[in-house]
Amino acid sequence: MARWEPDGRGRLAQAALDLYLERGFDQTTVAEIAERAGLTERTFFRHYGDKREVLFGGQEALHELISTTIAEQSDSTAPMVAMGAALTAFAELLTQRRDFARQRQIVIDANPSLQERELIKLTSLAATAAGTLRDRGVTEPAASLAAEAGVAAFRIAFARWIQADDRGLPEFLTEALRVLETVTAGR
Amino acid sequence: MARWEPDGRGRLAQAALDLYLERGFDQTTVAEIAERAGLTERTFFRHYGDKREVLFGGQEALHELISTTIAEQSDSTAPMVAMGAALTAFAELLTQRRDFARQRQIVIDANPSLQERELIKLTSLAATAAGTLRDRGVTEPAASLAAEAGVAAFRIAFARWIQADDRGLPEFLTEALRVLETVTAGR
Repeated sequence: MARWEPDGRGRLAQAALDLYLERGFDQTTVAEIAERAGLTERTFFRHYGDKREVLFGGQEALHELISTTIAEQSDSTAPMVAMGAALTAFAELLTQRRDFARQRQIVIDANPSLQERELIKLTSLAATAAGTLRDRGVTEPAASLAAEAGVAAFRIAFARWIQADDRGLPEFLTEALRVLETVTAGR
Repeated sequence: MARWEPDGRGRLAQAALDLYLERGFDQTTVAEIAERAGLTERTFFRHYGDKREVLFGGQEALHELISTTIAEQSDSTAPMVAMGAALTAFAELLTQRRDFARQRQIVIDANPSLQERELIKLTSLAATAAGTLRDRGVTEPAASLAAEAGVAAFRIAFARWIQADDRGLPEFLTEALRVLETVTAGR
C-alpha cells in the first residue's frame, strides 16, 4: 500500500491527463494512471470516484462559488453584474491553471461523450446561477437569460484564452461580457 | 409489406411519441412503434434511421434554415438582428406543432442521454449560426456571442412556451430577445 502522499491528488491528475492525451480517454485504465503516478489504484479511488472525475471533479465547490458570489452582491446590484462577478471569481481560479485547462480541453474535444458531459456541466452551472438570481428577486426570463448569456460569454472567453496566452482568462471574460452587451444592444 | 402511406412518417412519429410517453424511450422498440402505427418496421426505417431520429430528425433542414435566413439579411443588418430573424423563422415553424413539441420535451426531460443529445443539437446550431455570421464579416467574439446568446434566448423562450399556451413561440422569443438586451445592458 502506498504511503500517504501530500500531492497524490495532483500527481494522479497530471498522470491521468498525460495518458488521456497519449492514448485517448477511453483507452486509459485507472491501473495505468496509478502506475504512472507511482501510486496504487486504491489511492486513486481515495481521490477520485472514476477516471472521468479527474476531468470533472470539483463541481460542488464550483456551484458553491457561483451561488455564494451572486448572493454576496449588494441588493442593488444588477443581475448581469452579479453574474459577471461570479464568473470572474471562477475565471480567477482557472487562470492559474492554464496548462491543465488546455490539456484537459484537448482531451474533451477528442471525445464526444466528454463533450456532452462538459455541456451538461455548464448548463447545470447556469441553472444554479439562475436559481440564485431568482432568490434575489430577479424575475424570469431575466434570471435565466443573465445566467445563460453569462455562461455563454464564459465559454467563448475560455475557448479564446486556451488558444492565446497573451492575456489572462479574467480579461477575456471581461471582453466577452462587454461585447455581449454591445452585440445584444445592436438589435 | 405495407403499401406506401401518404402520412406514414407523421403516423410513425405520433406512435413513437405516444409509446415513449407511456413506457419511456429506452423501453420502446421500433417493432412496437411500427405496430402501433399499423405499419411495418421496414416502413419505419424508410423514414427514420433509428428511434432517436423521430425526436431529432430534420437537423439538416434546420441548419439550412438558420444559415439561409442569416445570409439573406441585408449587409447593414446588425448580427443580433440577423440572428433574431433566423430564430424567428425557426419559431414560426415550431409554433404550429406545440402539442408535438411539448410531448417531445416530456420524453427528453425524462432521459439524460436525450437531454445530452438536445444540448449538442443546440450547440451545433449556434456554431452554424456563428459561422454564417463570420461569413458576413462579423468578427469574433461578437459572432459567437450573438449566436450563443440568441440560442440561449430561444431555449428559454421555448421552455416558457411549452408551459403556457397564451402566446405563440415567436412572441416568447421576441420577449426573450428584448429582455436579453435589457439584462446585458444592466452591467
